[in-house]
Amino acid sequence: METTAFDLIVIGAGSTGENVADQAIHGGLSVAVVESDLVGGDCSYWACMPSKALIRPGEALRAARAVKGAAAAVTGSLDPAAVLQRRDSFTSGWDDSGQVEWLEGTGATLVRGTGRITGEREVTVETDDGPVVLIARHAVAVCTGTEPNIPDIEGLRDARPWTTKDVTSAQQVPGSLAILGGGVAACELASAFASLGSDVTLIARHTLLGTMEAFAGEAVARRLRARGVQVRTGAGATRVERSGGTVTLTLSDGELVEAAELLVATGRRPRTGGLGLDVLGLDADDYLTVDDTLRVEGHDWLYAVGDINGRALLTHQGKYQARAAGDVIAARAAGQPVEDDTWGRHAATADHGAVPQVVFTDPQVASVGLTGKAAGERGIAARTVEYDLAQVAGASLHADDYQGKACLVIDEGKGTVVGATFVGPDVAELLHAATIAVVGEVPLHRLWHAVPAYPTMSEVWLRLLEATGDDFRTARR
Amino acid sequence: METTAFDLIVIGAGSTGENVADQAIHGGLSVAVVESDLVGGDCSYWACMPSKALIRPGEALRAARAVKGAAAAVTGSLDPAAVLQRRDSFTSGWDDSGQVEWLEGTGATLVRGTGRITGEREVTVETDDGPVVLIARHAVAVCTGTEPNIPDIEGLRDARPWTTKDVTSAQQVPGSLAILGGGVAACELASAFASLGSDVTLIARHTLLGTMEAFAGEAVARRLRARGVQVRTGAGATRVERSGGTVTLTLSDGELVEAAELLVATGRRPRTGGLGLDVLGLDADDYLTVDDTLRVEGHDWLYAVGDINGRALLTHQGKYQARAAGDVIAARAAGQPVEDDTWGRHAATADHGAVPQVVFTDPQVASVGLTGKAAGERGIAARTVEYDLAQVAGASLHADDYQGKACLVIDEGKGTVVGATFVGPDVAELLHAATIAVVGEVPLHRLWHAVPAYPTMSEVWLRLLEATGDDFRTARR
Repeated sequence: METTAFDLIVIGAGSTGENVADQAIHGGLSVAVVESDLVGGDCSYWACMPSKALIRPGEALRAARAVKGAAAAVTGSLDPAAVLQRRDSFTSGWDDSGQVEWLEGTGATLVRGTGRITGEREVTVETDDGPVVLIARHAVAVCTGTEPNIPDIEGLRDARPWTTKDVTSAQQVPGSLAILGGGVAACELASAFASLGSDVTLIARHTLLGTMEAFAGEAVARRLRARGVQVRTGAGATRVERSGGTVTLTLSDGELVEAAELLVATGRRPRTGGLGLDVLGLDADDYLTVDDTLRVEGHDWLYAVGDINGRALLTHQGKYQARAAGDVIAARAAGQPVEDDTWGRHAATADHGAVPQVVFTDPQVASVGLTGKAAGERGIAARTVEYDLAQVAGASLHADDYQGKACLVIDEGKGTVVGATFVGPDVAELLHAATIAVVGEVPLHRLWHAVPAYPTMSEVWLRLLEATGDDFRTARR
Repeated sequence: METTAFDLIVIGAGSTGENVADQAIHGGLSVAVVESDLVGGDCSYWACMPSKALIRPGEALRAARAVKGAAAAVTGSLDPAAVLQRRDSFTSGWDDSGQVEWLEGTGATLVRGTGRITGEREVTVETDDGPVVLIARHAVAVCTGTEPNIPDIEGLRDARPWTTKDVTSAQQVPGSLAILGGGVAACELASAFASLGSDVTLIARHTLLGTMEAFAGEAVARRLRARGVQVRTGAGATRVERSGGTVTLTLSDGELVEAAELLVATGRRPRTGGLGLDVLGLDADDYLTVDDTLRVEGHDWLYAVGDINGRALLTHQGKYQARAAGDVIAARAAGQPVEDDTWGRHAATADHGAVPQVVFTDPQVASVGLTGKAAGERGIAARTVEYDLAQVAGASLHADDYQGKACLVIDEGKGTVVGATFVGPDVAELLHAATIAVVGEVPLHRLWHAVPAYPTMSEVWLRLLEATGDDFRTARR
């Protein structure tokens, strides 16, 4: 059995694993990356990229229809075949050769196969040519992400439901689609497939987008309903049955929902199966708990980066952690100082209160940091100020009958922004300003000098600052 | 002759004057506002609002055409009559009753007529009912803005050229339009009227958008040309003649340009005519020089706010100054402390190095702070880092064949961002993040923790930070 040593072994070549490797190589380490599926991972092939590609054409068309003078030029409707074809171009037809080229270009050694931790600093990979043992001189980074969580509902597994993997790679638009779930993936895909012509029924146990400010999920539900989607909140399925081309769901209230396909988007769980974590005395069914340098407690050579640690299940946040992790692994290997203080280069501090997220629904939802509720639960003297985006000139110029809302969550003690949410068409790019304000801990009295250009939608910042009140205009409180 | 006293007299009821008044009233003062034309001013009726309203429909249609799957649905073209009608709704048909209602709702007294300074703290208004003398107990704020600068070219005035006022209120789209100028208004209106079907010729003495990073004007010129606009840079007109429905321009190289209408957009000059500034010993033809509290030097009761002081000829910056001015006038009147230190609530500090601007051309141009060149001229150890927006996943998802570019200007000594420019379709809302970074003086090592959400165009921030180099990732330099 072949045995090879590397400074670092990364298990999982999704965007997080790729970035851990790249960063560590940048820091002078030799790195092996183990991958059992496509290099590039879920984000490239079965999540962000195909999902956004399915969404964007409908969004662009709605935006043109929303402006008098342009609307008359839009006589046709979306071309589903062209949308799917465009989606295929973003997933490179599920061929990872481009990503492999990139990864090998960094200097990493790609090992195709399923990796398992078989001892301290030891990973055994089941390759097509048999097992290979990799020895890590310094560290092993687990970056295997998450997998769909299939709830325990009678008949569900036998009904061959779609997961997000199936729906984002679908080669046809089903005539009707039932979706179980009320989170980001469920809402985005409901919106996308409604645009593409499916009759969509969304079945959510609670409200939509429940971790965000309540007005976000409400706005999404309202628009989905206006576009003909059946939105059933506070509802669960108790039984599922497939008969030929039809899936029938029995809801908790006894109602029946029929659809050609059923998407299960009820959350994710850590992809820990077969990793051999039990060998290390770790719980193989749970997220791996790490410190701010992404190191697993009690195992100074083991890192868990990205979704697998459960800190923030988002591509960009995984990459952020990856930069810290790859860098700190290299620093520790070289005996260089570790900068793991708050906001230090080796600490994923933003995970705790500055995680941004854009939901590409209709309307879009963009949020960062804490909701008003979450801030209160942390004991922050928080106040939420809101403003109707429709009252902003930039928004009404952007689209007729623009509907949207923005809020800031203010830490009244510190006089800073600790959270922000924007809901409305095309608000995605408004978010980063809030992310910088939160992360930079820029005082409100300084933010008054950050003038939004007129007439953009960003002018809502001015209105939100006005809503915080005169007290926060001065440094002399 | 009627004489009335107010705490503050504001001359000019454009957006700046309105905001000075509102802020001062908020601070407890009685305010008269003098206006000879429409309340709301140029921005509402003959600049930002109608201009953006003319631009947006074409922009929305281009965005839909740029996405495969949506493009096929766009079979028609822009409806110019509907665009003009939509524009009319944004200018309220050039009826200011809504703005008057707002202004009077603040508690201000509107005096219709032409105001002239006739002595210290004294303004005489020529009203329809004869002259009225207004006495200012505390201050007079001049907020009259600017007017088009008509260059001294043979035959130009006799050719009855359009100014931005005429073009933004045009009731028909001319078959052909020649534009003199290469600045923001010239470029925006060239793009708008090309979309509306005019044959446009743009004649600019130098390059386009000359005060911005060079790549901005180059990108705009490239796209205008690709869309059929004749762009003549480095060219001037030496002679203009109107004959019936045709204006003929003789260019400096002897070439002739014919068009149905000619727009002169060669810059602005302060609207000081008839203000009586000579009474105070001030130069009546120049911008009024003010300190950071917007007070005219040597006259402790006289303020000049907005375009008239020449600091930054932009609606939002005028309103920013207005907030400081209205507030400081009230504070001084009440004998309260003045906070005129850098970034204090009474100082328009941002005017010096943090002025944002969005140019609604195709592509859009958004900039804030210093260009690389301007930073160098100020003696800052500056470095400019650039990134191709087409390489950002969010941009390629947004539009097929997306073309754009972003740059940051870095103060290498301080490790902060002092300028930023974004060029590309729909980059307008990316700007405010840069404005907050510049104004907040957020260190680069902290900006690494401001994670852009994937896949948005804002991810370009990550690439720009990477381009600044590893040194700026740490606080321990």
